[in-house]
Amino acid sequence: MNLPSGFSFGGVACGIKKNGDPDLALALSETPCTAAALFTQNRFAAAPVQYDRQLLSLNPGGVQAALINSGNANAATGAAGLAATRRSAEAVETIFGLPPWSTLVMSTGVIGQPLPVARIETALPGLFHSLRAGVDGFQAAARAIMTTDTHPKLATQRVDLGDGVITLAGIAKGAGMIHPNMATMLALILTDAALPPDLLHLALRQAADRSFNRISVDGDTSTNDTLALLANGAAGYTITAAAAPAFQAFTAGLTAVCTELALAIVADGEGATKRATIRVSGLADEAQAHRVANAIAISPLVKTAIYGGDANWGRILAAAGNSGVPFAAEQAQLWISGGASAAEMLPALQLVAGGAPLPFAETESTRRFAQPELLIDLRLGDGPGQATMWTCDLSHDYVTINGMYRT
Amino acid sequence: MNLPSGFSFGGVACGIKKNGDPDLALALSETPCTAAALFTQNRFAAAPVQYDRQLLSLNPGGVQAALINSGNANAATGAAGLAATRRSAEAVETIFGLPPWSTLVMSTGVIGQPLPVARIETALPGLFHSLRAGVDGFQAAARAIMTTDTHPKLATQRVDLGDGVITLAGIAKGAGMIHPNMATMLALILTDAALPPDLLHLALRQAADRSFNRISVDGDTSTNDTLALLANGAAGYTITAAAAPAFQAFTAGLTAVCTELALAIVADGEGATKRATIRVSGLADEAQAHRVANAIAISPLVKTAIYGGDANWGRILAAAGNSGVPFAAEQAQLWISGGASAAEMLPALQLVAGGAPLPFAETESTRRFAQPELLIDLRLGDGPGQATMWTCDLSHDYVTINGMYRT
Repeated sequence: MNLPSGFSFGGVACGIKKNGDPDLALALSETPCTAAALFTQNRFAAAPVQYDRQLLSLNPGGVQAALINSGNANAATGAAGLAATRRSAEAVETIFGLPPWSTLVMSTGVIGQPLPVARIETALPGLFHSLRAGVDGFQAAARAIMTTDTHPKLATQRVDLGDGVITLAGIAKGAGMIHPNMATMLALILTDAALPPDLLHLALRQAADRSFNRISVDGDTSTNDTLALLANGAAGYTITAAAAPAFQAFTAGLTAVCTELALAIVADGEGATKRATIRVSGLADEAQAHRVANAIAISPLVKTAIYGGDANWGRILAAAGNSGVPFAAEQAQLWISGGASAAEMLPALQLVAGGAPLPFAETESTRRFAQPELLIDLRLGDGPGQATMWTCDLSHDYVTINGMYRT
Repeated sequence: MNLPSGFSFGGVACGIKKNGDPDLALALSETPCTAAALFTQNRFAAAPVQYDRQLLSLNPGGVQAALINSGNANAATGAAGLAATRRSAEAVETIFGLPPWSTLVMSTGVIGQPLPVARIETALPGLFHSLRAGVDGFQAAARAIMTTDTHPKLATQRVDLGDGVITLAGIAKGAGMIHPNMATMLALILTDAALPPDLLHLALRQAADRSFNRISVDGDTSTNDTLALLANGAAGYTITAAAAPAFQAFTAGLTAVCTELALAIVADGEGATKRATIRVSGLADEAQAHRVANAIAISPLVKTAIYGGDANWGRILAAAGNSGVPFAAEQAQLWISGGASAAEMLPALQLVAGGAPLPFAETESTRRFAQPELLIDLRLGDGPGQATMWTCDLSHDYVTINGMYRT
């Protein structure tokens, strides 16, 4: 695993989680970074989201640390919540000797409970001593940001820019309240490339629109969604223009990291036992195709049918018909495939042509729906618009996990 | 139970359902009725929806029968499906001696399978002999339209118009794929009042907008949603103008019948163990309040928290924040109440003021969340816009029912 130069990482248990699991992570850069971030569109944006927005407007070229806690979202906590976030950032800056406004803060967990900021302050010296530049530290940080995730999520990418090589590394947490709108639950990506803040933001938006913004676990957008990218320039390579081939290569590498993390979030969705790729095509434009794919991805009836391995394809058409997107139902074509993994799919089986069912062997259809990886391919006309979304099934365990989350 | 004059009803098993349960219902008027109906906005409108739309444009003053089958939705079945619907309507007209274009058809059940219309034809003579004007026939019809409903849903209302009395009676089926958009799953309402088709349609739309269009079980809008109203005039009272006090009284009575049926659908939602009333106020207008209430009503995280009796009120705010409606989060106020029924509620407990949590006793909050009937009251400002929606919880049984529905 290649990690970008000039960063160190750590993760410890500070006592926010009652069970003693790690719940506090830190990423630290040796030098100031340019930073870009995308945040939730939820009206109840959490205190750390409000804080980070302010920080990035004040100091987008001087970020040096990112502090992330799990177990408490510090959302819907009013002025006291914002003060708690500020206090935790200032504690990091004091203990690590950083200038003011240099620490991004992210929180994830239960909404509406006071953040026990004193526990964070108490744990910071221990976190300081645990920081490591290598894989151990990176994995500890990834583990400390988990909530109902069953395993840590990390991705790295080396990108050859022609006349230089840079490295990207990211961690993310997912599991529930996952239906990103402009960003995802929590993800932090680090690179040793150097880019000015505006280019970094452009690259991040392009990457997110094809990765984090195309997944759904349960259709609920979190109050804390944050996707942040820090670039410290330690690789000695500076990208200065969006038109440069190096910018395209960097964005492609960033998209690869974001997609790997986004797919890991779907695969580990709360209670998820199966994954589905939903490909919609033939519409007027990509936005319409995305709306149809989204309607299918969030439908509880589609998701429970996938869980049960029931080839109830009518629900897929019904969900598409509810998207509000105009199309000619009598042109609908539907194919289903499935396999042990996205790379090992059975041949696609066409179920619908001209908006009506084709005769097909029930055993063949059921065989595909029984696989852990499904591909749903819906064509709704002859237009150029197409989009892909990734989702997971809705299982008994999702209900169990979310019926008793706080308790 | 008062039933409108001049109608008879019946329900039999014709063999569409594999388990032999009743699956074919008929309502017959002695004389031609004016008729109005609201249909699904789903792009994959089922064959009977397409057929009924055509019938009502051709013959809105000459409807005499409504044939309803359960177990097969006859949706996404192409030209063959439409021909099957027409054949079933014509069979009714032949056997019962009715003129052409006088039989409304409704279907509910699995999507995308051919309707076994020959079984319907074979069963019609027996259905003809089973017709009854009284409660027995009415209940048999209500039972024959059930799918995953656990009990039949009926409502009646006598309306005093000042200088005359008319009666309304309705049956409905619900359970799953319930998120009406302009109409509900299937509901048939009969009255012995007389109204011209345009007034009947106006009354039906007004009633539906405050009843069926305000409930959600799972956020999925059916391909078959149909709410039909037949008026045969047997009570000898004619309403001729929307400005007449009798029209207001009629519409109020109709709204009462629609609300009773809509609430019965929510209470019997697939796997439902609890019901919730969601009242949103303080926004700019009713449409905005409805959008916020809807976002809360369809949130899987809110619905699983209700199921688990977990006072996780942060999810309610998070869902409201995702509605896309602008409001000042720092003005949010939230009250929760609960009780054994809508009529026996514990005093409301305020959880949030000024967008931040109030100190409250966890035991008091949990006591309310544990009740079978919940009232969620969210105020988001000082505007005049308010709306109420009704929903149910998302339980393990919902997943079980929908993971194995077809099989």
